[in-house]
Amino acid sequence: MKNYIKYNEWQIIEEGFDPHLNKISESIFSLGNGRMGQRANFEEQYTGETLQGNYVAGVYYPDKTRVGWWKNGYPEYFAKVLNATNWIGINIVVNDEVLDLNTCKVLDFSRVLDMQLGTLTRRFSVELKNGNVLDVETIRFCSLVDDEAGAIKYTITPHNFDGKISIESSLDGDVKNQDSNYDEKFWTEISAKQQDDFALLTMETKKTAFWVSSGIYTAIHQDGIALNVKPKFSTKEKYVAQQFTVDVKKDQATTIYKYAVNLSSENHDKTELENAAVEVLKTVVAKGFDQMLKEQAAAWTTKWQNGDVIIEGDVAAQQAIRFNIFQLHQTYTGEDARLNIGPKGFTGEKYGGSTYWDTEAYCLPFYLATAPQQVSENLLIYRYNHLEKAIENAEKLGFKDGAALYPMVTINGEECHNEWEITFEEIHRNGAIAFAIFNYIRYTGEQKYLAEYGLEVLIGIARFWAQRINWSIEKEKYVMLGITGPNEYENNVNNNWYTSTIATWCLKYTIEAIDLVKADNPQELNQILAKTKFDTVKEITHWQDIITKMFYPEDEKLGIFLQQDGYLDKEQVLVKDLPAVDRPLNQKWSWDRILRSCFIKQADVLQGIYFFEEDYDIETIRRNYDFYEPRTVHESSLSPCVHAIIAAKLGDLDRAYEFYLRTSRLDLDDYNNDTEDGLHITSMAGTWLSVVEGFGGMRIKNNQLHLHPVLPKKWKSYAFKIGFRQAIITVKVDEQKVSLKNESEKALTLNIFGEDHTLQANGVLELNSQIIAH
Amino acid sequence: MKNYIKYNEWQIIEEGFDPHLNKISESIFSLGNGRMGQRANFEEQYTGETLQGNYVAGVYYPDKTRVGWWKNGYPEYFAKVLNATNWIGINIVVNDEVLDLNTCKVLDFSRVLDMQLGTLTRRFSVELKNGNVLDVETIRFCSLVDDEAGAIKYTITPHNFDGKISIESSLDGDVKNQDSNYDEKFWTEISAKQQDDFALLTMETKKTAFWVSSGIYTAIHQDGIALNVKPKFSTKEKYVAQQFTVDVKKDQATTIYKYAVNLSSENHDKTELENAAVEVLKTVVAKGFDQMLKEQAAAWTTKWQNGDVIIEGDVAAQQAIRFNIFQLHQTYTGEDARLNIGPKGFTGEKYGGSTYWDTEAYCLPFYLATAPQQVSENLLIYRYNHLEKAIENAEKLGFKDGAALYPMVTINGEECHNEWEITFEEIHRNGAIAFAIFNYIRYTGEQKYLAEYGLEVLIGIARFWAQRINWSIEKEKYVMLGITGPNEYENNVNNNWYTSTIATWCLKYTIEAIDLVKADNPQELNQILAKTKFDTVKEITHWQDIITKMFYPEDEKLGIFLQQDGYLDKEQVLVKDLPAVDRPLNQKWSWDRILRSCFIKQADVLQGIYFFEEDYDIETIRRNYDFYEPRTVHESSLSPCVHAIIAAKLGDLDRAYEFYLRTSRLDLDDYNNDTEDGLHITSMAGTWLSVVEGFGGMRIKNNQLHLHPVLPKKWKSYAFKIGFRQAIITVKVDEQKVSLKNESEKALTLNIFGEDHTLQANGVLELNSQIIAH
Repeated sequence: MKNYIKYNEWQIIEEGFDPHLNKISESIFSLGNGRMGQRANFEEQYTGETLQGNYVAGVYYPDKTRVGWWKNGYPEYFAKVLNATNWIGINIVVNDEVLDLNTCKVLDFSRVLDMQLGTLTRRFSVELKNGNVLDVETIRFCSLVDDEAGAIKYTITPHNFDGKISIESSLDGDVKNQDSNYDEKFWTEISAKQQDDFALLTMETKKTAFWVSSGIYTAIHQDGIALNVKPKFSTKEKYVAQQFTVDVKKDQATTIYKYAVNLSSENHDKTELENAAVEVLKTVVAKGFDQMLKEQAAAWTTKWQNGDVIIEGDVAAQQAIRFNIFQLHQTYTGEDARLNIGPKGFTGEKYGGSTYWDTEAYCLPFYLATAPQQVSENLLIYRYNHLEKAIENAEKLGFKDGAALYPMVTINGEECHNEWEITFEEIHRNGAIAFAIFNYIRYTGEQKYLAEYGLEVLIGIARFWAQRINWSIEKEKYVMLGITGPNEYENNVNNNWYTSTIATWCLKYTIEAIDLVKADNPQELNQILAKTKFDTVKEITHWQDIITKMFYPEDEKLGIFLQQDGYLDKEQVLVKDLPAVDRPLNQKWSWDRILRSCFIKQADVLQGIYFFEEDYDIETIRRNYDFYEPRTVHESSLSPCVHAIIAAKLGDLDRAYEFYLRTSRLDLDDYNNDTEDGLHITSMAGTWLSVVEGFGGMRIKNNQLHLHPVLPKKWKSYAFKIGFRQAIITVKVDEQKVSLKNESEKALTLNIFGEDHTLQANGVLELNSQIIAH
Repeated sequence: MKNYIKYNEWQIIEEGFDPHLNKISESIFSLGNGRMGQRANFEEQYTGETLQGNYVAGVYYPDKTRVGWWKNGYPEYFAKVLNATNWIGINIVVNDEVLDLNTCKVLDFSRVLDMQLGTLTRRFSVELKNGNVLDVETIRFCSLVDDEAGAIKYTITPHNFDGKISIESSLDGDVKNQDSNYDEKFWTEISAKQQDDFALLTMETKKTAFWVSSGIYTAIHQDGIALNVKPKFSTKEKYVAQQFTVDVKKDQATTIYKYAVNLSSENHDKTELENAAVEVLKTVVAKGFDQMLKEQAAAWTTKWQNGDVIIEGDVAAQQAIRFNIFQLHQTYTGEDARLNIGPKGFTGEKYGGSTYWDTEAYCLPFYLATAPQQVSENLLIYRYNHLEKAIENAEKLGFKDGAALYPMVTINGEECHNEWEITFEEIHRNGAIAFAIFNYIRYTGEQKYLAEYGLEVLIGIARFWAQRINWSIEKEKYVMLGITGPNEYENNVNNNWYTSTIATWCLKYTIEAIDLVKADNPQELNQILAKTKFDTVKEITHWQDIITKMFYPEDEKLGIFLQQDGYLDKEQVLVKDLPAVDRPLNQKWSWDRILRSCFIKQADVLQGIYFFEEDYDIETIRRNYDFYEPRTVHESSLSPCVHAIIAAKLGDLDRAYEFYLRTSRLDLDDYNNDTEDGLHITSMAGTWLSVVEGFGGMRIKNNQLHLHPVLPKKWKSYAFKIGFRQAIITVKVDEQKVSLKNESEKALTLNIFGEDHTLQANGVLELNSQIIAH
């Protein structure tokens, strides 16, 4: 855990330069606009420790799998998020000395991520070895409005000298993925050229043959006036640059404006790609930096109007929730159903593929409540489009007749992961994908999604479960063997309660969905049944049999669901009794010791209780929470938020607040010592959930919005806004009261603290605060 | 499965050249002398498919671990058997055309491994592209007598031409391991030079800094007379050669004699290594090829006198058992306690390290009965010498206070394997190492081994089990969680019956061993207890508690031991009902499907029954055999032999014979499609066991040799020889009688068919044959 980020409600601030923190800051200060993004690398040369990263959405490379020991069924390739052309490069030579923060003396340094403007600003003063002292200020952003473009304003002011500064503004396609399995570079050059005032570079990925055309335009200003200098064009393999040499004077500011575009063949014809790049570049150059920045600020204002969470009395918490929301918006805008929310977004390479079950389990509820419905629908359609691949994936493992197993990790629908205990066994992901369909319909009320897309996916998933489950002559029950649950600190267990529970839920919901579509769209049902060759009698009879006779491990004495068969054979120790030196277990203990211990990485039984809360009375929830939470080490970024929500529900606000801080400041404070690899983007949606579902107590039950707001002790108040079926509701909670405002023209009857209230169009409502479990 | 090796009692014969079989034959026809060995690669250039392999005992390289996903506790390095300087190279150019069986027309080809002489002979006729037809005969061997030397006699006879032949006799150190994790070469050159008539090459391994000095001498004879030609010395990086060009005439034989030595810094000072190589080379050159060959034949005759198994009436079975014994002798001579029996010996790279539990479980009994006692003792001392590393290994995984976990795979005592489910969980290997101590003492009667070496090892192992086992409040028994048994088609199971059984056996035996040493060597016991900081009261009390309250899974209804918790939850299918296209499972099924199935790779419960046979009545053994064998796919080379022994014990001779053939001809017939990687050396000892313990019914009980010989239907007779406590007994079994002969001066009372008989010194005994279970 670290604590170097300054608290501020709207800004993320680093002061002073510590090279050891640089890779962490590169992650935290990342920029993105859903279409492209980048780590907060320096524009000028930096020879210190850095993880260079520029990413273009949807562009990936299938890197040949590398494992110690091959297991049948492993995927041949891992589709990796690609480090792409670096467009920020502005190398500076001052009187023949290269400006490099690793070699000169840094007198002053700050880095600021402004979440209202969507900009990254860096200011520093340095003394070079030649004695020259200079100030630099650089502002850059990835434009939300022109989402294929970015801009940089880089200002140099000599402090104690007159002289010459050489500037090289570049596009560098000669980049590598740090996680390349065979130390191979993934890009080849298509073309590199100067065209008018622009430098252009078009690169192609090996194997996948994606093209990315980048272009830059660079202008130099002094005393606020553009210098009339033409750049010298320079090129080497996979690299183009514009070079300038200018005379500078003490205290005179020299400003470099750099405009860059990155267009991908995912969005343009290859034949037109370079021309399109030139056109976009012309547009943004014509707009100019100031206008672009103005539009950027306006676009962010709109985002915040819809999605802000305001916390009074706790600036650390306020900063954190905004940081989480800001990074989610930078990663995914929901306009393109081919894209998804990668675990590291545009902030690092780690975990490769772009989609885990995180999307369905954690991110979807955030977008349901804060974004236009199309965004959530696109997330669902992404999986619909991968159904065929999921069926192929299941076939590869020996399943048949249309059974679908969605991949653990994917970009294009094909499985990428290659650890047998995860790839083949952490199959609860299939349940989360079905649950997301249910959740989407529960939230939006859009039953028709089932007939259009949902049911086919549900049938494929249900068939998988029906084949994956087998009859035990020993137990005279159906069992599910060889499972890794959400708690990845157990592998290859039998009868994981969560997985068995979500599996039979999938069967039930699919049967229900068939009935619903039958009632509403009988013709479409017939088409789906024909397309999927569905045998209504045989398959549903089998499913019903499984639903009736499934085995779920329980301990009657303790009154809890058992995480898996044999969980109580483990030595029962509590996390509070673990020596501090043993934490985090995943860095301190051998893997077998972790596996044999009772310690839990993240919500497992409790994940099921979170999803299916309505099925359990409050005392059952409390017994399971009281049993499992003390055994949970929360070493997954996805753990604290679920616990925050359940703790809040049970009235344990202190623990809920603790979990909230842990999830919300996970990256800002580098809780798990891994922020340098990139941010935990998907768990950021969990942070939002822990406020809105946790403290706000938001639920959807029976087509109705439910709230049960409670206030953590440390907060003066908090407020959030949610969209629910055409209504937009602002909720503010302080010690005395809960204030609601309907900001839409749609009246809404909602349930607060267990009672129905109607909020008229544009109406307001005030209730006294309560603190009780719900 | 293949069937191209010709049946012959003393020879392994390949006729005709099929390039697709070449890598398989390269394995089968491998040569070795315990000190060095090699695959049956061609002397002359071969551009077709080949796995080049020359190995020097004890010389290894720690290759940096490469895995898909790192787990805490994995070893940093995998110590690999090293492909070393290739000393067989004799490149031939005939009238400007390179002799290469991949490019010329092969008119005739045979390869013969002569197991009486210990030689590899190859004869072929080829037509070159230039029309030249020639015959080649080449004989080579690794000398048993001069075990740092090998020799080749390579004879070329032109068939239809006169002309020139260029000969390049080389030492090539520029070799690679195919399994190199980072495509790196492991050797650097120390020196390459000509000295008098010798070409010398000294290479050094990276990291481990082993030196290997090789030297060659080449002489050319025509018409049986040495030509007076001096070689031209030629060198390039890591390569030296002696070149000759000779005139040849139609039907005139030109013979190349090549003598080679390989000396390792494991056996000589580095400073003296090259000189020592020159001296050995001088010695063997002085001897000459014919003398060396004569000595080689004599040495093999001695080996066969002690270790032969003679089978009449079944040449396939006869050839196979001799092949197995021959390859074991080629791999390990037992003179050096730093060496061990690698799973592939000197026949391939696969599986890297040199020692698995195979040594203790399968090989030791072979050497106990057929080799001087020192050989078995060296195998045990090898592990004694690694005790400290085993303690470190256990500490790395979180164990303490002197608990020792021996590695899954090792060369120098450090763990090399890197699959968590094997490395951390297939811990029954620890049991096999303790059992080997017991077995050694049971066989030899040498109790004193305990005080000298054994007890320390036993205490380390017992401590490991005591810490690895935990108390289950649920079962109110001790349990062992997170286990992979010998059946590697199950991973991370709880309460594997075999592992739990051998674990508590280790505790019992260690307590017994302490008592034995106390009785015989009280002073040494005190030294050992002090050295190991043993707390007699506390530790033994704890062990006794475990012994009394250990949980072993059983099914009372079926009357069987359960392989592990939940085994009967699996769908119960028999191997005979598996479609042929699904076999072998490990090539046809995904890993998770294998894991979830009830199918068993190799003896697991039955391995325990094999080890601890005396603890179970015959009906218990039968029930377990009848239950488990039909679920066993025998996809480990170690599986058939154990089943052969139990089947023979139960009187099921047909199955026993089937298993015998499968184990004995595993490589000759390439049963598992993997012989090309190298031979299954350790399971070859299992072949011998299946004859002597299986058909011969040999057991040691109460310090007495027991026999219960039965004759497979297909055999006319079989005979084997065993050494037991100074007595040497020949056993011959035919349909009518069992004939025993004591070939020693030591009288021996032994038990045959359940009754005691005394065989006087040099005495004979005849009994009527019986076929009953025992």
